[in-house]
Amino acid sequence: MIFSAVSHLQTPAELYSINKESVCVRIKTAKNDVLQVTIIHGDPYVWEQDSWQSSEKSMSLAGSDDLHDYWTVTLQLPHSRLRYGFILTSTDESVVYTERGFYQEKPKHVSPYFCLPYLHENEIFSPPSWVKDTVWYQIFPERFSNGDPSINPDNVLPWGSEEPQVDSFFGGDLQGVINHLDHLSDLGINGIYFTPIFKAFSNHKYDTIDYMQIDPQFGDEQTLIKLVQECHKRGIRVMLDAVFNHSGYYFEPFQDVLKNGEDSRYRDWFHPHAYPLDPHAQKPNYETFAFVGMMPKLNTANPEVKDYLLQVARYWIETFDIDGWRLDVANEVDHDFWRDFRRTVKETKEDVYILGEIWHQSTPWLVGDQFDAVMNYPLTDAIQDFVLREETVESFTQSITRHLFSYPQPVNQVQFNLLDSHDTARVLTESNGNKNHVMLQYLMLFSFPGSPCIYYGDEIGMAGDNDPGCRACMIWDQNKQDTELFTFVKDLIQWRKELPTMGTYETIQFHESGVDDVLLYSTYSNDEVLLIAINRSQTAQSIVLPESFMDYTLIDHISG
Amino acid sequence: MIFSAVSHLQTPAELYSINKESVCVRIKTAKNDVLQVTIIHGDPYVWEQDSWQSSEKSMSLAGSDDLHDYWTVTLQLPHSRLRYGFILTSTDESVVYTERGFYQEKPKHVSPYFCLPYLHENEIFSPPSWVKDTVWYQIFPERFSNGDPSINPDNVLPWGSEEPQVDSFFGGDLQGVINHLDHLSDLGINGIYFTPIFKAFSNHKYDTIDYMQIDPQFGDEQTLIKLVQECHKRGIRVMLDAVFNHSGYYFEPFQDVLKNGEDSRYRDWFHPHAYPLDPHAQKPNYETFAFVGMMPKLNTANPEVKDYLLQVARYWIETFDIDGWRLDVANEVDHDFWRDFRRTVKETKEDVYILGEIWHQSTPWLVGDQFDAVMNYPLTDAIQDFVLREETVESFTQSITRHLFSYPQPVNQVQFNLLDSHDTARVLTESNGNKNHVMLQYLMLFSFPGSPCIYYGDEIGMAGDNDPGCRACMIWDQNKQDTELFTFVKDLIQWRKELPTMGTYETIQFHESGVDDVLLYSTYSNDEVLLIAINRSQTAQSIVLPESFMDYTLIDHISG
Repeated sequence: MIFSAVSHLQTPAELYSINKESVCVRIKTAKNDVLQVTIIHGDPYVWEQDSWQSSEKSMSLAGSDDLHDYWTVTLQLPHSRLRYGFILTSTDESVVYTERGFYQEKPKHVSPYFCLPYLHENEIFSPPSWVKDTVWYQIFPERFSNGDPSINPDNVLPWGSEEPQVDSFFGGDLQGVINHLDHLSDLGINGIYFTPIFKAFSNHKYDTIDYMQIDPQFGDEQTLIKLVQECHKRGIRVMLDAVFNHSGYYFEPFQDVLKNGEDSRYRDWFHPHAYPLDPHAQKPNYETFAFVGMMPKLNTANPEVKDYLLQVARYWIETFDIDGWRLDVANEVDHDFWRDFRRTVKETKEDVYILGEIWHQSTPWLVGDQFDAVMNYPLTDAIQDFVLREETVESFTQSITRHLFSYPQPVNQVQFNLLDSHDTARVLTESNGNKNHVMLQYLMLFSFPGSPCIYYGDEIGMAGDNDPGCRACMIWDQNKQDTELFTFVKDLIQWRKELPTMGTYETIQFHESGVDDVLLYSTYSNDEVLLIAINRSQTAQSIVLPESFMDYTLIDHISG
Repeated sequence: MIFSAVSHLQTPAELYSINKESVCVRIKTAKNDVLQVTIIHGDPYVWEQDSWQSSEKSMSLAGSDDLHDYWTVTLQLPHSRLRYGFILTSTDESVVYTERGFYQEKPKHVSPYFCLPYLHENEIFSPPSWVKDTVWYQIFPERFSNGDPSINPDNVLPWGSEEPQVDSFFGGDLQGVINHLDHLSDLGINGIYFTPIFKAFSNHKYDTIDYMQIDPQFGDEQTLIKLVQECHKRGIRVMLDAVFNHSGYYFEPFQDVLKNGEDSRYRDWFHPHAYPLDPHAQKPNYETFAFVGMMPKLNTANPEVKDYLLQVARYWIETFDIDGWRLDVANEVDHDFWRDFRRTVKETKEDVYILGEIWHQSTPWLVGDQFDAVMNYPLTDAIQDFVLREETVESFTQSITRHLFSYPQPVNQVQFNLLDSHDTARVLTESNGNKNHVMLQYLMLFSFPGSPCIYYGDEIGMAGDNDPGCRACMIWDQNKQDTELFTFVKDLIQWRKELPTMGTYETIQFHESGVDDVLLYSTYSNDEVLLIAINRSQTAQSIVLPESFMDYTLIDHISG
């Protein structure tokens, strides 16, 4: 046995609660090394005649990546407490693995065993129940639709008249969204994620001037109230974007520090290193987002700042009844702030979805006390690496398995899955205009656990390179829309609603297809299995059905 | 290379901040598998010509256990942000290890690399600076000294007249401690940890009746004020014991629920499953400590309970100027409570030491937002396994290395190290009366990183088996005290004060001694090295000096 590769850590990925009475335990062993894993488990306080009383339960091999096998088991805890260890059996030996290492036999005393001291109700990861079944649509408000020309910004350009530049304005606004809700209902989405709508300087609005005001270019409070009401009538939830890592240059407190330097009463709202502040230096003399002087980093550990931002968090929920907060640059804000943020948000409205923008491994934010999910860019990368970049089937299944097993399953079920966004090239462009490849990617996105999102315009075939290219004006001329793609995405959304196997709550299972270009996997619900074959090549392929499917009645869902 | 054994996790043990500008990174590889590890590191936002800019730094092999090598490096972060990966070189290959797995070459894009998004000042583990240099003395107040017979409990037994039983009372009190401070000053300790002194039913007082009152059998507020003042005059800090996991049976709110059942206004202070409560059932119908009906579990998630207990935490600091809180059954209380506890305590007095009673791996509580340390029983076990239970030198060094590398070094420096307590047999009894073995164990305890504690009476040779045996009356008759042992412990404390190498802030280093019964290790300060040989056998042994010591001037510290 490769002992050095055996690993169980009491991180949320390997020990997580499902509810007050049960937990899931996972353990990693070297690939193809261990034949059987049995968990030894019991309540730490149940003893008989100086000997700890435990039971045993067999664990399942739930997945494998290139290096490891992942084993899993669910346990019931009658008294909310658990001590546990593992019996690992390979072809030539059987050993017991505990917190203190390996033993030849089960230790009789409880002290070497792993310990879950007490399962607290307030420590169970509890995302809103509606997220699992939500299909999102991301709107960049300046570019979706101009519904109210009376509030156009200065120098507004005619809709779609030219390629967007970093500083162009086309007059998109909230009334424009209201006007086009039929398009979204027709598509079938049931959640909208809006990039920022608070008063700001730029067209993307990530440089907030006033956290308590809707950008006058987008509308006023009445417009937003109406928009949310109209959405809710159609069963569409609304998520706004909060930029709490940094403010904009024209945020009043920052302007005050610029003017008054050390004497500003807002000095401690930021992280100045020297005075006067020098926003135009290559590396400004205060903390910023990246090295962008126009985006001064907020001091979220300052109680005054925290109070202000939590008031912001509350205000938009209370006043406009929004359903979600997407948090910009969420990984660069302190955990303490996010814990108070969650407390505030959930006290205001219990089922608000809290989504962090984090591009890397995000477990520290997903333990139940901060976010419900993050933007799942690693999934994006894996999908595109396979469909577009010639990565092998094995490489895909391995990286996805590693990714899924790095999070508890309740997190995977509500992750925010996407193929692109305002921060990337559009999927059609990334796919070099190959629409079949775009469709395959959507099929993958919609069949995976998590909550998929469509970036505005992708559904009608819009192209666009990285910012600013991906932020072009939505095309409303139906003659210029790709209706075949629209219908495909619409069908996918419909299937997702009808088939519990689409966007399964369970882990997906990979199979050998026998063909290099075909990825074959299945997803599960209580009584159905969905088998999906992704053929990235330009030609039809014959694949071998997995043996386990031989007894099933097969229905071709696409052709009927 | 054994890829499946390579592991870096962004847990506090493998990525921790030392101060606002620097972090320590560790990585594990299979033992004797990798020859060299180099860290690739840089600020995520420093790019040139579409390529992320990074530097490289060699990592040190800082320790090994039976299965793994542990590599470490300290990095400076000019902008509080870090992306990083590792170049691993074995005899036959060189690979790059990142968050997304292994690469043949350094990825040019930053996204696969590990990420420390931002080092926040409020997330740096910051224990009180005085703890590293503190030697503790644990007092079980009912058994240390009877200084005020006027407050004796009923049925008090003459001091030391018989072996303690679970329900015997001998009249020990706080005045008794004041009377004997000379003994403690003479010994040289500079911290006292008192097991609970709040009003309670039992002799051990872990079943609180009133969290705001000193047990009348121990004294009154004036006695405690005087005791703390006298201690502070002598440079001795005072730590009290808080039992917040559960109350005692006679705690008024619990009595109220017993009487009024579902109608009690204190119903939600506990975790009732049914009414009336049945405290005498084998498994009570409410949550308890273990299955002890007399110790009902408090509902620390209830804001009312939390407010009350945080008031308790504040009261004893504000009123009596105590310096530490030891937290009973700390692992079974929710993290959220402990975070608020820390906030409250540190707001009241910044340098209070917060010590949790946890017997197993405790990283989740030691990330900076909850405890400063835990009671280091795994160290106790390892020391005793080697000195008393015939475990090999290798087994000791391996389990200690694994243990030390499972925590950040700043945690190791303030861990509460002990050989015994009111919850175990006394060290002399555990050692079957072998005083040499006791001395060896103290030498090990005092030379390790952390804050050592002496259990009252051990220093004068008291014996005693597990509770109640270990809770006998302190022996004050000097003719019955072991003065040789007292002098030895006193010397150790003196050395610890004089020699920065004793109780080093650094990791210890193990050496081959060439003899099965001799453990050989060295500890470090800026300009000195201390080499310690622990010979557990009954006879003198010749050992081989480590080669690295050949150039040193050696001084025999014990014989002079």
